[in-house]
Amino acid sequence: MSYFGNVNPIKFEGRQSTNPLAFKFYNPDEVIMGRTMREHLRFSVAYWHSFTANGSDPFGGGTAIRGWDRFSGMDLAKARVEACFELLNILGVDYYCFHDRDIVPEGDTLQETNKNLDEIVALLKDNMKAHGKKLLWNTANMFSNARFVHGAATTSNADVYAYAAAQVKKALEHGKELGAENYVFWGGREGYETLLNTDLGLELDNLARFLHMAVDYAKEIGFDGQFLIEPKPKEPTKHQYDFDAATSLSFLQKYDLMKDFKLNLEANHATLAGHTFEHELRVARINGALGSIDANQGDMLLGWDTDEFPTDLYGTTLAMYEILNNEGGIGRGGVNFDAKVRRGSFEAIDVVYAHIAGIDAFARGLQVAAKLIEDRVLDKVVEDRYASFKTGIGADIVSGKADFKSLETYALQNNPIENASGRLELIKSVVNQYILNV
Amino acid sequence: MSYFGNVNPIKFEGRQSTNPLAFKFYNPDEVIMGRTMREHLRFSVAYWHSFTANGSDPFGGGTAIRGWDRFSGMDLAKARVEACFELLNILGVDYYCFHDRDIVPEGDTLQETNKNLDEIVALLKDNMKAHGKKLLWNTANMFSNARFVHGAATTSNADVYAYAAAQVKKALEHGKELGAENYVFWGGREGYETLLNTDLGLELDNLARFLHMAVDYAKEIGFDGQFLIEPKPKEPTKHQYDFDAATSLSFLQKYDLMKDFKLNLEANHATLAGHTFEHELRVARINGALGSIDANQGDMLLGWDTDEFPTDLYGTTLAMYEILNNEGGIGRGGVNFDAKVRRGSFEAIDVVYAHIAGIDAFARGLQVAAKLIEDRVLDKVVEDRYASFKTGIGADIVSGKADFKSLETYALQNNPIENASGRLELIKSVVNQYILNV
Amino acid sequence: MSYFGNVNPIKFEGRQSTNPLAFKFYNPDEVIMGRTMREHLRFSVAYWHSFTANGSDPFGGGTAIRGWDRFSGMDLAKARVEACFELLNILGVDYYCFHDRDIVPEGDTLQETNKNLDEIVALLKDNMKAHGKKLLWNTANMFSNARFVHGAATTSNADVYAYAAAQVKKALEHGKELGAENYVFWGGREGYETLLNTDLGLELDNLARFLHMAVDYAKEIGFDGQFLIEPKPKEPTKHQYDFDAATSLSFLQKYDLMKDFKLNLEANHATLAGHTFEHELRVARINGALGSIDANQGDMLLGWDTDEFPTDLYGTTLAMYEILNNEGGIGRGGVNFDAKVRRGSFEAIDVVYAHIAGIDAFARGLQVAAKLIEDRVLDKVVEDRYASFKTGIGADIVSGKADFKSLETYALQNNPIENASGRLELIKSVVNQYILNV
Amino acid sequence: MSYFGNVNPIKFEGRQSTNPLAFKFYNPDEVIMGRTMREHLRFSVAYWHSFTANGSDPFGGGTAIRGWDRFSGMDLAKARVEACFELLNILGVDYYCFHDRDIVPEGDTLQETNKNLDEIVALLKDNMKAHGKKLLWNTANMFSNARFVHGAATTSNADVYAYAAAQVKKALEHGKELGAENYVFWGGREGYETLLNTDLGLELDNLARFLHMAVDYAKEIGFDGQFLIEPKPKEPTKHQYDFDAATSLSFLQKYDLMKDFKLNLEANHATLAGHTFEHELRVARINGALGSIDANQGDMLLGWDTDEFPTDLYGTTLAMYEILNNEGGIGRGGVNFDAKVRRGSFEAIDVVYAHIAGIDAFARGLQVAAKLIEDRVLDKVVEDRYASFKTGIGADIVSGKADFKSLETYALQNNPIENASGRLELIKSVVNQYILNV
Repeated sequence: MSYFGNVNPIKFEGRQSTNPLAFKFYNPDEVIMGRTMREHLRFSVAYWHSFTANGSDPFGGGTAIRGWDRFSGMDLAKARVEACFELLNILGVDYYCFHDRDIVPEGDTLQETNKNLDEIVALLKDNMKAHGKKLLWNTANMFSNARFVHGAATTSNADVYAYAAAQVKKALEHGKELGAENYVFWGGREGYETLLNTDLGLELDNLARFLHMAVDYAKEIGFDGQFLIEPKPKEPTKHQYDFDAATSLSFLQKYDLMKDFKLNLEANHATLAGHTFEHELRVARINGALGSIDANQGDMLLGWDTDEFPTDLYGTTLAMYEILNNEGGIGRGGVNFDAKVRRGSFEAIDVVYAHIAGIDAFARGLQVAAKLIEDRVLDKVVEDRYASFKTGIGADIVSGKADFKSLETYALQNNPIENASGRLELIKSVVNQYILNV
Repeated sequence: MSYFGNVNPIKFEGRQSTNPLAFKFYNPDEVIMGRTMREHLRFSVAYWHSFTANGSDPFGGGTAIRGWDRFSGMDLAKARVEACFELLNILGVDYYCFHDRDIVPEGDTLQETNKNLDEIVALLKDNMKAHGKKLLWNTANMFSNARFVHGAATTSNADVYAYAAAQVKKALEHGKELGAENYVFWGGREGYETLLNTDLGLELDNLARFLHMAVDYAKEIGFDGQFLIEPKPKEPTKHQYDFDAATSLSFLQKYDLMKDFKLNLEANHATLAGHTFEHELRVARINGALGSIDANQGDMLLGWDTDEFPTDLYGTTLAMYEILNNEGGIGRGGVNFDAKVRRGSFEAIDVVYAHIAGIDAFARGLQVAAKLIEDRVLDKVVEDRYASFKTGIGADIVSGKADFKSLETYALQNNPIENASGRLELIKSVVNQYILNV
Repeated sequence: MSYFGNVNPIKFEGRQSTNPLAFKFYNPDEVIMGRTMREHLRFSVAYWHSFTANGSDPFGGGTAIRGWDRFSGMDLAKARVEACFELLNILGVDYYCFHDRDIVPEGDTLQETNKNLDEIVALLKDNMKAHGKKLLWNTANMFSNARFVHGAATTSNADVYAYAAAQVKKALEHGKELGAENYVFWGGREGYETLLNTDLGLELDNLARFLHMAVDYAKEIGFDGQFLIEPKPKEPTKHQYDFDAATSLSFLQKYDLMKDFKLNLEANHATLAGHTFEHELRVARINGALGSIDANQGDMLLGWDTDEFPTDLYGTTLAMYEILNNEGGIGRGGVNFDAKVRRGSFEAIDVVYAHIAGIDAFARGLQVAAKLIEDRVLDKVVEDRYASFKTGIGADIVSGKADFKSLETYALQNNPIENASGRLELIKSVVNQYILNV
Repeated sequence: MSYFGNVNPIKFEGRQSTNPLAFKFYNPDEVIMGRTMREHLRFSVAYWHSFTANGSDPFGGGTAIRGWDRFSGMDLAKARVEACFELLNILGVDYYCFHDRDIVPEGDTLQETNKNLDEIVALLKDNMKAHGKKLLWNTANMFSNARFVHGAATTSNADVYAYAAAQVKKALEHGKELGAENYVFWGGREGYETLLNTDLGLELDNLARFLHMAVDYAKEIGFDGQFLIEPKPKEPTKHQYDFDAATSLSFLQKYDLMKDFKLNLEANHATLAGHTFEHELRVARINGALGSIDANQGDMLLGWDTDEFPTDLYGTTLAMYEILNNEGGIGRGGVNFDAKVRRGSFEAIDVVYAHIAGIDAFARGLQVAAKLIEDRVLDKVVEDRYASFKTGIGADIVSGKADFKSLETYALQNNPIENASGRLELIKSVVNQYILNV
C-alpha cells in the first residue's frame, strides 16, 4: 500500500520546472568539486518528525492525517517502517535516523521494550537491505518518559541513571546491528530547571562517566560509529548542559573526551543559543569537531525550537560553505532533516513537499557555496585582509618570535596606523549575486 | 573642593532609616560567617562609569552635570582623580578599577599617551596612599579608539596587534606600580561583525598568543595580580569571542591557559548570553575559575548592556550564595560596580544614591545567602535529592565501578522506578521568606 | 476521599512561621485601604493547570501523579470537580475559572459534548452552592482540537467558525447558569503561521463579527458577566492577533467594541510581548480597560509561556500598585492563578505549595503597594516631576490654550532650560526598603 | 571637489555584471505593473547616516574617513550639502530625508540655530533645483540634545515641550519651503525609563495635543505634506510610546488623529518589536495607514537597532509585495535608506557600495513581488483557502446575516468538519523559485 498517495520517485527537472513534485536543484549525480551532490549532502529523513509525531503542540492535539493512524501497538510500529522506506524511495534519500522510542511503543518493562525493539530493528534491517538504504545515526530517547523528569545521565536518581545506561547499551547494539554510521547524544533533559536544587558539579561528572562508559562499551562490542554530541541551549529544560558548540567542547576537553566525540549541529539550536548556524559550524570546524548536521531552521522571532524545514537560501549556502571547507566535508555525517511540517500542513503529501523544499534549498546552497569557493571570493577577501600577518612584525607574531617588548618597540615607531575597510556591504552584494546567478 | 556636594561619609543606620544618604544593610564591620562584610564584598567603584562617562547614548549626547566639566585635557584627568577619591571616601569603599584611557586623554603618539599615564598613575598612587584605598584591577581600553575597529589582539592588522601589546605592557607596569590585585581582559572588539571576512582560527590563535605574552611579561616584571577574562557575548561586536563562562573556559583549556586565568563575571553580560548570573558563577566555581564580579543588572526586556546598578535582591542573594560557596569566597577579586546611573539621573548626587542602592542590595544579599547556608536550606535539599548516589548502584556509578553491563543488569530487575518531586515552588517560597525575614 | 493528602485548610500564621502549609502574608480578613485582602485579591484557581493538565511538554509525557488518574471519561470529569472544590477549600480561595473542554471529554458530536457539559455544569453548580465558591470566569477552548488548526473565529473555514460560535453560545449559557462574573476570549489559534497564505483583513473582520455576536447573544439571554480579551503575542501561533494591550485596544476601537470589553492581562504574556506586566496594566488602566489578571510569571531567559507560579515580589508589588490605583481596583475581575507547577513538581501537594507561594507573594505585594500609596511615595515623585504642567505655559498646554506660535514665542525667550534628575536609583532603593520593611 | 572619489553615476548593467559599481537589478526606467521602477521605489538617502554620523558606537569613537572631516561649524554643514547631492547624483536617487539637527550645528540659542537652519535650507533648495532632487521628508531631532533627556512632546518639563513645539514649527516651515512630501514624527525619547516616576496618561495626552497643534499649524501655513508616525518599540528609551503599528494606530484612533496621520515603517523597528516587517506593513495596509518605509534590516540575534543596509531578498520581496498590494503603492512615501555602513566599512566608497546593495535588493524584491502578483501565486492560495466564506453559511457570516443561533443550528448538523492543508512548505518552495528565476 501507499502512505504518501502513490507519488512517483521525485526526479530532477531543473530550476524552471513548475512541477511541485520535482527537484529543481537537487541532481544527485551532479558532480561538484569532485563529489556528487549525493555524496556531499548525504540526506537523511528523521523518523520522529515524519513517522512518529502527529502535529500536536503544547496547546493542541495532533492534526496529521496519516495512513498508519488506523494501526496501534506493534502493528503501528511496522506500518511506520513501511512508510519510512516508501518516503526514502520517493525522495531518493539514502539515510534515515531514529530514536529507540520512535520505532516502538514502550512496554511495561525494559525487557518487553527491548523485545519490541529487537523485532523492529530486524524489520528495519531487512528493509534497508531490500531498498539499499542506510542508517545515518540512531540514538536513545531519554527525555519523553516521565522517569527522565530530572534527567537521564544527569538525573538526581541513580536508578534512572542505570535505566538510561541500559537503554544506550541496547541502542549501541542496535546501531552496530544496522551499521549506523554515527551515534548521537542529545540531552533533552540533561540540564536543570533551577540551580536552587541542583548539584551541577556532580551532574556533569556523572554525564562524563556515562559517555566514557558508552565509548568503552562501543569498543567492547566493535561498534565503530562516530559518537556525536548535539548541543542545544534550552527546551525542554530551562538550561541544557550542551548549550552550544563551545560549551560542549569545553566539557569534552575537561573530561578527556575530545578524541571520541564530534558535534551534531542543528540550525535551530544554534539560533536559540544566540548564534548563527554558520558560527556553530565554524567553531566545530576549527576544533576538528564538525561531525554532522541537523538541517532545519527556526523562526527568529519565536523563542522555541520550531524545527522548520530549511528553505532560507542564505542559511543553506553558509552551512554548505562551512561543510565544503571542512576537511573531508561532512565525512561520516550527513544532512539530516530534523524538521517537521507545520501543524497546518497536515496531509501526508506535505511531508513530501517539505522534504523537496529542504533538499532543493540545500542543493542550491551547495552550488552557491562551491562556486564561491571555486572563484575564491571569500578566500581572497580573507587573504588580503590578514596579509599583514604573513610578513614582518605580523609573521613574528604568528611564529611566536614576538613578545611584548619587541611589539612595543615596533609600535612606538609606527605612527599612525592605517586600517582597511572590511567591505561588508559589498561582500553581501556579491553573495546575493552568487545566490541568484549560479 | 567637592564634586559630590559636601556629602558626609555614608554611615550604617539600619533598615528602618529613611535617610537616603545612609546604608540600611551595609555595615562594613558586621561579621558574617567569620568575615566582615567589608572582607566578603570588597566593593569597588568603576572609574569609567562614574568619572569618565557623561550619559551619552547612541541617540544623544551627555547629560551628566559634573563639577569637573569645566576642565579639559590633563586638568580634567586630575580633577577626576580627585573626584574618585572623594567618592571612595564618601562611600567608605576600599577599591576602584580603571581602563588606561579612562584616566587620561590619548595623546598624538603612544609616547605622549604613556607620558600622560605615568603622570596620572603617580597621582593615583599618592592618593591611594593618602586615603588608604586600593586598586582592584586595571585594564587597557582596546576598543574605543578607531584603530581597534577590527579588533586588538584579534585584529586583522598586525600593526594594531603590536599597538595593543604595547598598551597592555604599559598597563601591566602600572598595575604593578599601583599594587593592582587583578588585571582584566575584556575584549570589546575581540570578535567579528561577519564570518564572511573573518579568519576565526587565526584570530583565536593570535588571542592566545597575546595572553601568553601577557603572562610572560607579568612574570618578567614581577606583577603578581590575578589575570581575569571577562566574558560578554556581543556588543559592540556582533559576536564576541569570550561569549560566556563556558566558552571562555573552552578557550583557556585549548590554549593551555587555565592555570593563569580566572573569570571576571558580570551580571548583565550573563543575561545577554542567555544565562542567569548565578549560572555563570556556578560554572566558574565548579571549574575553579571564579575570580571577581562586575556587579550590575540588565533589563531583561532590552537587548543591550544597560549596566544598571544592582538592586534586584534575588540577583544579589544568588550571586552572594555562589560566592560564599566558592572556596576562598571572592578571594583576590571583588564586587566592582560596573554600573552607570541612568541618563535621566544626571546629577552628581545620583552617583552616590546609586552606589548606596547597589551596596545595600549586595549587603542584604550577603546576609540572606549566609543565612541560607547557615541553616543548610539548599544544602539539605541537594543532599536529599542526590542521596541515591551515596550508596548501592549510585555509589558504584560515582566511584567508577559501574559499567553499562552492570547498570543494565541492575535496571532490568528494578521496575518501576520512583522519582521524588523537585519541590521548586516550595523552595522559592522559602527563599522569599529568607529575603524578607533576615 | 482526598486528592491532596488530607491537608488542613491553610491558615495565616504570620511571616515568621516555618510551616510550609501556612500563609505567611495572606490574611484574608486583614483590612488594607478599606477593603479586606480577600476583596482586593479575589483569588482564583485555574482548572486547566491544576486539574486537567498532567505535566506533559513538547518533549515528554505527563509526570503528574494524581488521585484522579485511575478514572477516565465522565468519571474522571467528576473526580476533577471533587478535587477542585477540595483545593478551593484547602486554600480558602473563593473563585475558579475553566475552559469548557477542561471539565469534560469531547464527545463524538457537538450534541454529545454539550450533554457532557450540561451534566458537569450541574455538578459544579451544586458544589459551588455547597462550598460557597464562585466562578470568576469561564471560556471556550477553541485551540486544542484539530478542527481549530487554522483558527476559530479567524479560521479560513466557515464550518469551523460556525462550530466555534456554537461552542461560545453554549459557554455563555453555562456562564449565566453558574453566575460567572466574567467571560474571557483568549485566541490561542486566532493568528497566523505565515502571511503568505493569510487574509489578515478578512480574519480580523470575522473576529469582530464574532465578538459582536457574542455580545448580542449575552444580552439576549441576560448574561451580565464582563467580557474580557486576553492578549498574548504568540504561541501556539507564530503571531496572535491580540498581541498585547495596545493592539487589543486598537482592535476594539476600530470595531466599536470598547464599551463591551475589558482586558484580562497575564504577566507571562506581557513579557513575551516585550513589556513588563505593570506596563500592560497601566495601558489598560489609563484606557479604562483593566478587567482582570492572570497571575503567573515567565522565565525572562526563555521564549515561551512558562506559566510559573508568581513568586517575584517586585512583580506582585507593581501589579498590585496598578490595581490599587485602578478605579474600583480589580472590580469584577480577580487574581487568577494561570500557573502550573513545574514538571518536576509532580506530586499533588506541590499544587498546594505552589498556590501558597503565589498567594503569599500577591498578599505581600498588596501590602507593599498599599503602603507606597498611603505614604504617597511615588505619587509625590510624579507630582513634583510634572509640576511645570500645573502653572504658566504648562497649564496652557494642558488646557489647550497653547499653540505652536505661542509656544515658540515662549521658547525663544526661555534660555537655557533646566531639567531635574529622574532619581531612578534612589526610587529603586526606596521600593526595596518598602518590600523588606512593610 | 568629490567626496566619493570621482565615482561615475552608477548604471544598470544587468545581473551578470561583475562591476561592483553597477546596478545588477535596478533599472530605473524598467516598467513593472504599469510604473517604472523609479516610480515604484522612490528611493531616498538618509542624511544622518550618510553625511552626519561617523561610525561611533557606545564603545568607541568615529571611524568614518570623509572628505568633509576637515571642516567644522557651518562650513562642515555646507560641505555635507555638497556631498549629499554628489551621492544622489552618483546613485541616480531622487529623494533625501533629514532631521533639522543633521544639517546644522546647534547654536547657543534657538534663534541662532534657526538662523543656521535658514541658511542651509536655502542652500538645499538651490541644490535641489540645480540637480532635480526632491525632499521625501524632513523631521525634527528631539532626542539628541540633553534637554530632551525626559522626552520632548512627552517630557515632564513644560519648558522642553515648548522648545520642541518651536522646533517642529520651524521644521514644518522648512518642509513647506523645500516641498517636502511628508513630515515624520519619530519619538526617540517619547517613552519612559521606568513607570515608577512616569505619568503615562498625561504624557500621552500631551503627545496628542502636540500632534494636533502640528496638524493645525501645517494647515495654517499651507504645508500639505503627509504626516507620518514612525513606530519603534524601544531604544533609546526602555519603552517608546509608538511601540509598533498597532500601538500607533490605537493612539491615533483614541485621539482622533487617524485622518491626519499614516505610518512610516522601518524593518529593524518591526523586528525589535517582535514582528516581521511584512506584518507591520500589512497591519498598516489594512488600516489605510501605509505611508512610507525606512528600508534597512536588523540582525535578528542582536537586540538593538543595527540599521544595516537591506540585502536580504526575502525581506525586500515581502516588503514590496505589501507595497504593490497597497492602494496607490507607496504613494507619497518612498523607500528611504535609514541604514548605515558598518563601523568597519569606514571609507566613503563603502557608502556607495552599501546603497547599491540596498537598491539592487529592493529592485529585485520588486521584480519578484510583481511576478508573484502577476501570476496570482499567493492570491490563488488565499482565494482557495477562504472560499468557504463566499457561499452558504460563510457568506452569511461575512454579510452579517448569521448569529450564534443560526451558526449553532448549522454546526449541530455539520459533522465532521474537514479542513485543508495550509501548504506552507510548498508555498515557501515556490517563493524560492520566484526569487531565483525572475
